[in-house]
Amino acid sequence: METVKKILLKPAFYDGWTNVKIAGWVSSNRGNKKIRFIELNDGTTVINLQLVFKGEFDFDLLDSLKPGSALKVAGSLKATPDAPQPIEMNVTEIISAKKVDEDYPIQNQEIKLETLRELPHLRHRTNVFRSIMLIRSTLAQEIHKYFAHRDFFYMNSPIITSNDGEGAGETFSVSDGNINDPFFGKNNKATLGVTGQLHGESYAIGMNKIYTFGPTFRAERSNTKRHLAEFWMIEPEVAFYDLKDIIQLADDMLKVVIANTVAKHQAEMEFLDQYTNNGLLERINKFIHTPLQIVDYKDAIEELAKVRNIFENKDIKFGLDLGSEHEKYLTEKVYNAPIAVINFPKDFKAFYMHQNDDGKTVAAFDLLVPGVGELIGGSQRESDYEKLTQRVKELNIDQEDLQWYLDLRRFGHLLSSGFGVGFERLVMYVTGIENIRDTIPYPRTNGNIRM
Amino acid sequence: METVKKILLKPAFYDGWTNVKIAGWVSSNRGNKKIRFIELNDGTTVINLQLVFKGEFDFDLLDSLKPGSALKVAGSLKATPDAPQPIEMNVTEIISAKKVDEDYPIQNQEIKLETLRELPHLRHRTNVFRSIMLIRSTLAQEIHKYFAHRDFFYMNSPIITSNDGEGAGETFSVSDGNINDPFFGKNNKATLGVTGQLHGESYAIGMNKIYTFGPTFRAERSNTKRHLAEFWMIEPEVAFYDLKDIIQLADDMLKVVIANTVAKHQAEMEFLDQYTNNGLLERINKFIHTPLQIVDYKDAIEELAKVRNIFENKDIKFGLDLGSEHEKYLTEKVYNAPIAVINFPKDFKAFYMHQNDDGKTVAAFDLLVPGVGELIGGSQRESDYEKLTQRVKELNIDQEDLQWYLDLRRFGHLLSSGFGVGFERLVMYVTGIENIRDTIPYPRTNGNIRM
Repeated sequence: METVKKILLKPAFYDGWTNVKIAGWVSSNRGNKKIRFIELNDGTTVINLQLVFKGEFDFDLLDSLKPGSALKVAGSLKATPDAPQPIEMNVTEIISAKKVDEDYPIQNQEIKLETLRELPHLRHRTNVFRSIMLIRSTLAQEIHKYFAHRDFFYMNSPIITSNDGEGAGETFSVSDGNINDPFFGKNNKATLGVTGQLHGESYAIGMNKIYTFGPTFRAERSNTKRHLAEFWMIEPEVAFYDLKDIIQLADDMLKVVIANTVAKHQAEMEFLDQYTNNGLLERINKFIHTPLQIVDYKDAIEELAKVRNIFENKDIKFGLDLGSEHEKYLTEKVYNAPIAVINFPKDFKAFYMHQNDDGKTVAAFDLLVPGVGELIGGSQRESDYEKLTQRVKELNIDQEDLQWYLDLRRFGHLLSSGFGVGFERLVMYVTGIENIRDTIPYPRTNGNIRM
Repeated sequence: METVKKILLKPAFYDGWTNVKIAGWVSSNRGNKKIRFIELNDGTTVINLQLVFKGEFDFDLLDSLKPGSALKVAGSLKATPDAPQPIEMNVTEIISAKKVDEDYPIQNQEIKLETLRELPHLRHRTNVFRSIMLIRSTLAQEIHKYFAHRDFFYMNSPIITSNDGEGAGETFSVSDGNINDPFFGKNNKATLGVTGQLHGESYAIGMNKIYTFGPTFRAERSNTKRHLAEFWMIEPEVAFYDLKDIIQLADDMLKVVIANTVAKHQAEMEFLDQYTNNGLLERINKFIHTPLQIVDYKDAIEELAKVRNIFENKDIKFGLDLGSEHEKYLTEKVYNAPIAVINFPKDFKAFYMHQNDDGKTVAAFDLLVPGVGELIGGSQRESDYEKLTQRVKELNIDQEDLQWYLDLRRFGHLLSSGFGVGFERLVMYVTGIENIRDTIPYPRTNGNIRM
């Protein structure tokens, strides 16, 4: 069976093909009892294929196929270079059809995103969600392709874990309901992982270049446009890489994956550019072609201090944890480019980051992009067992729980670096969609577990 | 930086290269204070690269690099066509090195699999686990590649869900510890998904061809060699496909993915063939080249009844839920080929399977392979709202919870079919490893949540 996407990409090639079978869902239906035009969407692209019915058909049946109805037909393709759409199908046979009930809730394409959030099982049948979700899927597949081509090991870190990763953030606990005899044992915590990094590091030492791509969880009750309780993360970790190497990998991965995805979804990107009306395509194209700049945290602070009065938080000095307003100013106004801010004060960064010789900063980076701010955070890891253990003690983290992780430093950890990408944040960036609930099929947030 | 895998695959190409950089971990170390031979593994293959140190080196340092130590060197490559290994490196510079502490637990390669299960953060540094895990990673990447090349949508079904999928099996519940004000709301269940299928079906209607690949969970307390509490599933779902179409997809997917993976891991497959000593390579090669046979359940029962006395369960008649002994007999003795048994009695199959016209059977299939038994189960789905709802009532499944799913049949569900593959079962099959705990980096079972 052909797909609408393939046909639309090569109308001259398909011109004149006969007995082509197409199946999909009715987007619109107009005409009379003698001729009928049905726009069919088969899920492969946001664009519909126009089906023309003339001659001996059951026009009563055709008339009854409201939007959402399923339809499989055979017909011949005819290029229409002068029409808005480059090719259409003259149907010769209705193979099968199924009407939709009257209460089908997607009756037009003008429904608000908020309303559609109540219908996660149906909303991908609108143009806007079809576009977002197609791009999401391709981004994920391109990420796997990127790493597979570069000999990275795909690591499945555990989802249920007795470690809480960064020692920060609220975790969900997991139970089979048996309180007296917990499933995973009386003395074990069992929580949903907030990161796959620590387990990923254990595999980087031995497998060399690894990445995780799996779901992670935070039980945070803040209801914002940028937070989910369940979200997917990509976390590469590379042995023998230092901070400079890992920043280069992050930059290259983002640009290659985004460029390949956009190239495969011209129609969906153009649709979203019009829909969001926020210069999406221009922003993405500029990002792909603008070299990353590396900015030391202390230089960034100097730049911000020059204009401190424009910020809500004017307390610009070494030690400031950059807010969204500061990040956007740096990447949009000062550098007008994607930037990696490096060498942050250790006080607000995680315990496992490599401690620089100055005793104050760590070899961490945040990758910021115009229009959105932070897309990626990462660091070189502390390889020195004594320094790492000292930091764990300073921060009152339970050493016993983490001993297996600390031991990696005694067992062949010469150097390693890694980063994390929140996948739904990446989907937001590439699609221009402003609420993270609209970037994942079934969003989970505080109070919301629809279906 | 080059990888050992690339170098070993093309020794003639790399012969004579100078200043090549390699980093990895010491597998073995022998020699004296004048010449030293270190076998280095860089994680890209089970085979080591021999490093030769002659001349002006710190031989005390070299002597101290016990197995597990990290080492980065530069040197020149020399093909050695007459030696067991086709190429070796004459080291010219030690770039960096890090010794391993004396208590590094992987002191030799003869450790039992059971012992290594206590060390999930280190066991991938043995030949057997390095081989298994490399194959696991490539299988996963090849699965994504297979579906991406065929325009399948990659669907992320939710992990935390208020649906329990098949209405069978024990689920884990999820909580943030607040009993009076549950995170997902007072009237909502929140469990870890046992399948992504139902949500996957909702996307197949609209997106056409989809697959999930994500973690799923069962809180079963049975401790067997074939069960995990946390495991990964691949669940394709295709609109407009009937039983015959979906069986063809399952067969093709398995063969293409396994053939591509084996081709990339000759060395690891040969190592495992020797290690498991169970005819692994022959079995896999035969599977790839033997056409699938389709067998009606009632014909299978006839075949089994002919030899009923050889089975423990001799009660062979229509209605029997085939046991492992029956499955193995069918695929290994009767057909000597991979088989798809179809049209099972509806009584022991799930509610959503398409009800055949005989009123007794459903359009389900189990794909069985010699040596292992069931690898895949799937079905055409029931598209008729009334029949499906009737079945839900017969089985006393809570209809309200599933109403969104049932509604898909009223909203454009003409036909769809799908199947599920337990990813770790697939890894068992391809690697020949007999305990499922050895196919995933950090296995979770009843009473076990190490790290």
